[in-house]
Amino acid sequence: MTDGHQAADPQALAERVADAMWARDAASQYFGMRIVAIGPGTATLTMTVQPTMLNGHQTCHGGMIFTLADSAFAFACNSQNHVTVAAGCSIEFLAPAREGDVLTAHAAEQGASGRTGVYDIVVTNQEGRKVALFRGKSHRLAGHVVEA
Amino acid sequence: MTDGHQAADPQALAERVADAMWARDAASQYFGMRIVAIGPGTATLTMTVQPTMLNGHQTCHGGMIFTLADSAFAFACNSQNHVTVAAGCSIEFLAPAREGDVLTAHAAEQGASGRTGVYDIVVTNQEGRKVALFRGKSHRLAGHVVEA
Amino acid sequence: MTDGHQAADPQALAERVADAMWARDAASQYFGMRIVAIGPGTATLTMTVQPTMLNGHQTCHGGMIFTLADSAFAFACNSQNHVTVAAGCSIEFLAPAREGDVLTAHAAEQGASGRTGVYDIVVTNQEGRKVALFRGKSHRLAGHVVEA
Amino acid sequence: MTDGHQAADPQALAERVADAMWARDAASQYFGMRIVAIGPGTATLTMTVQPTMLNGHQTCHGGMIFTLADSAFAFACNSQNHVTVAAGCSIEFLAPAREGDVLTAHAAEQGASGRTGVYDIVVTNQEGRKVALFRGKSHRLAGHVVEA
Repeated sequence: MTDGHQAADPQALAERVADAMWARDAASQYFGMRIVAIGPGTATLTMTVQPTMLNGHQTCHGGMIFTLADSAFAFACNSQNHVTVAAGCSIEFLAPAREGDVLTAHAAEQGASGRTGVYDIVVTNQEGRKVALFRGKSHRLAGHVVEA
Repeated sequence: MTDGHQAADPQALAERVADAMWARDAASQYFGMRIVAIGPGTATLTMTVQPTMLNGHQTCHGGMIFTLADSAFAFACNSQNHVTVAAGCSIEFLAPAREGDVLTAHAAEQGASGRTGVYDIVVTNQEGRKVALFRGKSHRLAGHVVEA
Repeated sequence: MTDGHQAADPQALAERVADAMWARDAASQYFGMRIVAIGPGTATLTMTVQPTMLNGHQTCHGGMIFTLADSAFAFACNSQNHVTVAAGCSIEFLAPAREGDVLTAHAAEQGASGRTGVYDIVVTNQEGRKVALFRGKSHRLAGHVVEA
Repeated sequence: MTDGHQAADPQALAERVADAMWARDAASQYFGMRIVAIGPGTATLTMTVQPTMLNGHQTCHGGMIFTLADSAFAFACNSQNHVTVAAGCSIEFLAPAREGDVLTAHAAEQGASGRTGVYDIVVTNQEGRKVALFRGKSHRLAGHVVEA
């Protein structure tokens, strides 16, 4: 398969970009995240809530739920091989997450305007219950994640 | 000093609540946060960016900046000893944070309506540059953090 | 058809609530909005951009796009006959709207937690292009919009 | 006074820009807004709640409160004479506004990053009570509002 062919295949390109990003994404690895699916404009990641992720109310720190969603957002918004960063994000918390819960964050592009994109990320637990709704605004910089 | 006196002293109460929350806040401890100031409706926390906090762009994962701000928000919105949780939050990223940066998050109440409060948290780096602006909406539950 | 039957029929109830709200919603009428669809947890409204709705850049004032989306949100979040108000909203602007454009706002419930609900509203123009993405957080009060 | 002098005076420039924007801002005029103060990065506007601005709950439509805040945001973020538009906004509603209330929206820049700025707008009523907190993200385009 030639590079030209890969560049022309959005799914293959999304996978190459994800592999490259993952290899240097210390935080997502450190928190035990796993990429379970990737595609052009989409990403699905999972993370199990560890004892070290609990807050003073003995539920998962909102920051950790955000971090999982933000990683899914990053993999989704870079999937077309343009270096893209988060400009801003909002999150609504619908249900607490507990130690041992396996959280899944699914990110999908909702729209774009110039260098800005909007992505929605839904975080669910192992029972399919919605834990949080995250909306991310991305900003595309110059440059590519991997060589075309 | 009697308990009744302490309850009547908002600053002392805020400090007692913060001590109790901190003791069981595994996540904030785990990330090396420090409470540098606490008051009625306010909290200031710091955190140093560790190598494990870097994302695929080799800057601090937005989720870690959010987590610091969210902890400051939690200490501020519980400081009057009503058990209070985050309902939703938004964050705008203004500048990247790098490994070794010492981030400070200052939280202050901006307004309230019934059981809902709005808090603004400003995250700055060691040079005083604004790294992120966070706005949190809190929701007060029944119960107290510490005995009055 | 008995009142009891109507109360048990979510679609009929949503329509009765919408009729009652519309009759006293001076603003939505004033701006020429029209309800094109209503259902349990959903609402679709349209509005044509008038010359009086233009801002200093000669495009539709963002506040008017927000107002249309906010009305769709209100009809959707009250559709189950619990008096419900907006607690907070966010909007991302993707494309400008021009004089004469016919905007459509479609609102749908995304999740709920206690008395709080989250609704997404998509605003499109007559060509189907996304003009704005709006996310509303609702807060349910006591009382009903119409008698059961 | 030469144009060069005016360009060098941020306050005079902010006033010239506001005059030019106001002259063509049909919506802000139509709703009876008034500019009560303008400065580099800041703007204060007022609006009286009219009967046509009420929603189905007989309080001021959230969209009208948003519109006032959004106008203040627009005057503040264009005040340095770079054509600037809203990319996204969020609003938290703290208290209802009633017919006849005189609302004041004060906008001030909080930070910037490249072409993006963050502005906070506080909406109060005639008693000084906070009605809403609005946060706007601006995006600077090419071009100037007035000739330098």
